[in-house]
Parts: sequence; structure tokens; C-alpha cells
Amino acid sequence: MATGKVLVAQGGGPTAVINQSLIGVTLEARRFRDIGLVYGARHGVRGIVDEDFIDLTQETSHNLEMVANTPSSALGSTRDKPDVQYCQEIFKVLRAHEIGHFFYVGGNDSSDTVRIVSEEAKKANYPLRCIHIPKTIDNDLVSNDHTPGFPSAARFVAQAFAGVNLDNASLPGIYVGIVMGRHAGFLTAASALGKKFADDGPHLIYVPERTFVLENFLADVKATYERFGRCVVAVSEGIHDASGAPIATLLAKELEHDAHGNVQLSGSGALADLLCEEIKTKLKIKRVRGDTFGYLQRSFIGCVSDVDQREAREVGEKAVQFAMWGKRDGSVSIKRTGYYSVDYELLPLDAVAGKTRTMEDEFIAENGADVTDAFRMYLRPLLGSGMPDAFRLRPNPVPKVMRK
Amino acid sequence: MATGKVLVAQGGGPTAVINQSLIGVTLEARRFRDIGLVYGARHGVRGIVDEDFIDLTQETSHNLEMVANTPSSALGSTRDKPDVQYCQEIFKVLRAHEIGHFFYVGGNDSSDTVRIVSEEAKKANYPLRCIHIPKTIDNDLVSNDHTPGFPSAARFVAQAFAGVNLDNASLPGIYVGIVMGRHAGFLTAASALGKKFADDGPHLIYVPERTFVLENFLADVKATYERFGRCVVAVSEGIHDASGAPIATLLAKELEHDAHGNVQLSGSGALADLLCEEIKTKLKIKRVRGDTFGYLQRSFIGCVSDVDQREAREVGEKAVQFAMWGKRDGSVSIKRTGYYSVDYELLPLDAVAGKTRTMEDEFIAENGADVTDAFRMYLRPLLGSGMPDAFRLRPNPVPKVMRK
Repeated sequence: MATGKVLVAQGGGPTAVINQSLIGVTLEARRFRDIGLVYGARHGVRGIVDEDFIDLTQETSHNLEMVANTPSSALGSTRDKPDVQYCQEIFKVLRAHEIGHFFYVGGNDSSDTVRIVSEEAKKANYPLRCIHIPKTIDNDLVSNDHTPGFPSAARFVAQAFAGVNLDNASLPGIYVGIVMGRHAGFLTAASALGKKFADDGPHLIYVPERTFVLENFLADVKATYERFGRCVVAVSEGIHDASGAPIATLLAKELEHDAHGNVQLSGSGALADLLCEEIKTKLKIKRVRGDTFGYLQRSFIGCVSDVDQREAREVGEKAVQFAMWGKRDGSVSIKRTGYYSVDYELLPLDAVAGKTRTMEDEFIAENGADVTDAFRMYLRPLLGSGMPDAFRLRPNPVPKVMRK
Repeated sequence: MATGKVLVAQGGGPTAVINQSLIGVTLEARRFRDIGLVYGARHGVRGIVDEDFIDLTQETSHNLEMVANTPSSALGSTRDKPDVQYCQEIFKVLRAHEIGHFFYVGGNDSSDTVRIVSEEAKKANYPLRCIHIPKTIDNDLVSNDHTPGFPSAARFVAQAFAGVNLDNASLPGIYVGIVMGRHAGFLTAASALGKKFADDGPHLIYVPERTFVLENFLADVKATYERFGRCVVAVSEGIHDASGAPIATLLAKELEHDAHGNVQLSGSGALADLLCEEIKTKLKIKRVRGDTFGYLQRSFIGCVSDVDQREAREVGEKAVQFAMWGKRDGSVSIKRTGYYSVDYELLPLDAVAGKTRTMEDEFIAENGADVTDAFRMYLRPLLGSGMPDAFRLRPNPVPKVMRK
């Protein structure tokens, strides 16, 4: 049987609830009498190979609960993507510290790390229980109804667009908001949940699951502007042409070609600015504004889904339970069992590792520039309670006196 | 005496609480038996000259309260800056509709409009009571402790930086966040209220009240990076060189010169991208990220200061009371009377109209790249109750085994 020492770490981009999973592991582990110490590795796998551990059993319950409610990875994170050799290093350190249980909170790259470490342990005949705990704001893990972290980021995006729509209605024009998600459009699609009235924005939503055609985009914006006198657009940072080339690169190249010079257009604001420039020059519309939501959407403190918090805590708890009672390695996954209710399963690591989920066809409108009601039904319960709501004055026009 | 008809309108950039003032006017006005109808002009002064009015007395109390809690201008806004002739048009329409009281919620441009309309009425010997109600996220109205709208935007900026700091601590590097405020640095300075621990960001804060020197900026970033292994920077969109030229323009020109071509660098993401590019190339730091907070900071739904809500409601109410009991025109202003308590005064319109407040020297640190405790004391009570708080794990290092 595995020894009584537990190691937990966090990898990849932080989320608003990733610490719930960390604390879920820590508190649940200490309820098992077979488990003695719970270590945390600082900055993910990097902290493992560096033996940079902190002892979580010397932390108070109160502070653990406060940390659980704090966004971003409390242990620190890393962008290291371990290859087989790196995983062998990880295994060596785990063995040296007599770790019996390894829990890694992360996305699909992290699940692959867990898979290789698990194999190394088996090869060496070392008793190590390895569990991957899901998280990602992109919602791109296969075999999960959704992943912890996505609902809170989705809530931020929905609230942001609800506000931006009100702003744009007040001072009409075109607004383009760029949302994270290089391959999966779930987070961009979440912008639709900010709509209440039929004429509310976002009027157009572009996800990386569909080829982006600049001419169609401009035609869509023009039609919306003519209909409503304004247009709010949600665009995924990952939009690309038919060949898969990112639109930001293509537009930058076009600019470069025009100027016969070298344009340095790296940096996060580029795509919004370039699309706005296209709208201004090609459609001759004056008030065009673009924002790139950037890091705010994954780290904003004070915008979190309580459903997401609860589930992120539960996947951490369940990871420990699966490890202790289940006697096998795997990846914790979320299954929807009601509207709205979930349960958790332990999947084989290779069912999740290194695979990428994208938006299902039934979630994307036929015109490729909106979401379906199926998507709204899917996402709504995840956003949690207390979603702010927008109200407007009812039309009670006063008869004109001077220009009857 | 003025007639019983009231007109209210909203001008300039929307805020999270500007509808509180609108509803404050509407509900308070109806408590005076001398007042009959309350009209709202759609899209500010533009709606007045177009006679685009809605009758707010045909609205339910419930919906008025719901609208009060909704961000952005419910009546719509405008960027029109009326000259004397435009104000004469406004006055003509007010007279044609037998308006006796004109309330305009807006910034310093709007107060100037109210001033001119007031003068036109006097010249024509028409009994019109004109009151300016303050709002602006920039906090740049003179003779006010602060202006409604600023506290909620400040809260967004503080929460955004609290989150961004946690994100940056998790995945260390340089982060540059661009904050609104072309002439006044109050909103950028609000980023300091997101700090809790001594090593938290923002480590550097640049406001337009001080000349921005690129070399000093790079030296500051370098020193911070060497000390903490990371650096979070808050930068006002309005930073400029000694001549007053915006830094975004200067950096874009430099780029243009390098490339011997024409670079089109308009658009909101440019300043962040350009500063990041400078850091990457001059300091050779790899992980450099920049965000422009853009419209999120003034329209985000669900991030509001309850103090701001209350005060925005009160300035609307007081405007009506000053008009009805005070028998003179003016601009409502907020005076701080305790820590924390306020009262309201009616100032002469020309005391506020067209003037711009900037950050007081006592609020800016001597090095020009931080705020003072006086500023923290000034701002903290305005952010309201329920500010989210960040917690971290306490250091309990585990002894190394392999590399003792």
C-alpha cells in the first residue's frame, strides 16, 4: 500500500477557484488516518524537481478556508510541460520524499504529466497513487461536462458583456471584446449569457470552432449596425482563417504589406485594434472601440460562481476519496446528473491526457456568429446564484411640441 | 415661481451608479406637490434639442429602483459639447415644453452646459431652475471631495489589480495594466488599494500628474523585478512627456522610425503593447503581459460600491431639494464631514463649470511612481463594504532530501 505522505501541486493558468481544489485535497486527506503529512509543491512540477515543498499540515483550518476563497494558484504555478525525462525527475523526488499520493490540479497537459509519472512508478514497482484534478477556464478537457474554473471565468465574461452592452446602448457605436480561448470557444460564447432583451449585445459571437472570414464579419457588423444603430461583438483570441492561420497575424501582415515596412504587432491588444481598424476604414463607422479582456477574466477577485467554488472543492475531495478507496490512478471528471446536479467519476488518465475538447456543433448557431439555446441551457446553471440583472426604463414617449 | 414640470438628463461617459442620481431626482421630485410631470431626455442634450423625451411619471416605483441599480445611463448619453448656440436651442425646447426645473447629471462639460442654459433663461426672464448633478469616474470635478461614479470604478480597478497581482505571483513576470483617466490619475492610483502584503503589486503606479520618463520607468521596472522576481505596474492612459505629448504617440513614432514605414497604431491596446515591447527589448525579460482595462472599468455589472450607490442617489435627491427650497441654480457637491460621512452643498455653477481637478500633491509619492498613505486613507471608505480580500499560505518549508 502507498505510504501516508501526500503531495499536491497546481499547474497551468490560474483560475478563480483552483485553490478550492487544493484545500479540498488538504482537508479531506487529513481525515484519513493512513495519511500523515500533506505537502504542497511550489510552482507546480517545477517545485517538485526543485524539492520546493511546504507542509500544509502546519496550516490552520481558518487560513486554509480563506485561501480556498482566494483566486489564482496559492502554491504558485508553472508553464513547464514535462517530457518523459522531466517526469522521471519528478518520480525520483517523490520517491526520495516517500510520497505515496500525488495530486496534480491542472489542464490536459497536467493530466499527461500525471499519466507519465504514474507509469514511471509502476515500472519501478513503487507504490504511488496518482490523481489528476481538472481545472481550466477554457473548458477544453474531454469527458467532462465542464471543468472547474470555467464557470467563474464565464461569469466574468457574461457580466462584462452585460455592462459593455449597457455602455454601448448609452453611447452607440461598435464594440469589439476579445476573449481568451485559443482552441475552444466556450468562454467567448459565455458572452451570450449577458443578454436579456432581444436587442441586447453581444449581437455577434465568433469562436475558433468556425473559420473566420473577414468579409463575412464586416457584413455581419454592417447589418447589425443598420438594424440597431450599434453593434457589440465577442471575438475569441483564437479566430483563424481556413488554413488555421490566426487572424491577428494575417491582419498585421496586411498592414505590413501596405506600409512596405516591418510592423511589430505582438502584444495582447493587437487583434482588437486591428479588427476595429478594419471596421473604421471599410465600413466608415466613426465610434468603434475594442477591448481585450486579458488577464482580468481569469483573475478578477470578487466575481466567482458559487457553483464553481463548490465543485472545485468537491473534485479535490473526491480525488482523495478515489485515491484512498478506489486503489487506482486516474483523472477526476464531472458528470451532469440533473438540471442542475453533478456527480464525479475517476477516468483512466489516458482518456483525458493531452486531448482537447472544443465546442460541440449543437452549441453554435448555423450562421456561425451566435450560440444556440442549447448552449444557454448548458451554461446558465454553472454561473451560480446572484447574477446581476439589467433593467431599462419602459418607453413612455412625450409628444413633441416644436416638431409635431 | 418655476412651473411644475421637471426635465432630467444624463451626459458624458456612463458610470455604475449614474442611474441612482436619475432615480433620486425622479422619486424626490414626485414628493413635491408643486411638481407635476417628470420628463427624461434621451441621450443627454441631444435628446433635448430633438425633443426626445420620455415621461418618467408613468414608470413604476419598482422598475425605477431596478433601473437605479443598473449601471450605465438608462436615458442614454451623448458626447455633444454644446456651445452657446446649442444651449440657446436647449433653452428654446425647455420653454416650449414649459419645463420649470432642469437637472443635468454629468461632468464638468455638463456643468458648463447647465451654466449657459441658466444664463439664457435669466436673459429671457423665464423662470427656470437649473441644477448640475456631479458624476465622473475620473474624479476630476473641483470643489468636491469626490464625484459619484469614481468610487465604483475605483473598486473595479482595485479588485482587478488584486486579482492580477495574485495571477502574477503564481506565474511571475511583468504585468502592465492601463487605466482610464486622461488628465487625472485618481483611477489609476486606486490600483494601490488592491495591495495587502508588502510584496504585493501594483509595485509601480504612473499618473498623468507627473511627467513620464521612459528611462526612469524601465529602471523602476528593472529594480522591482530584481527585488521580487516580478513586477505589476499600473499606468494611466494619459501619461505624457515633459512637453505634454502622450507616450503612446511617442512610442508609436519611434517604432515607425525604426521600420521606415507607416505604422497605424490607433486603438485602445496600443499603449500597453508598446510599453511591453520596450520592457521586452530593453530589459530582456521574457514574460511580459499588458492589458488595457478599457470599458470594463466603467460598465462592469456586479462591481459597485454601496457607498457610491447611496451618495449618487443622495446627490439626485439633494438636487431636487436645493431646487425647491433653495431658489437658486448651482452644482451639487460632496463635502466630507467625518471618517466616513458626507454632506452636500449647492455651489455656484461657475465654481465647477469647465474646471478640471487633478490629484493633489499629497496623494502622490515623492518618487512619482506610487501613492501615499494619505491617498489610501482618502479612498478606502469610498470603496464600500464587502471588498474581497486575498489570503496566502504561510511558509512552512519542508527540508530538502536530495539537495540538502
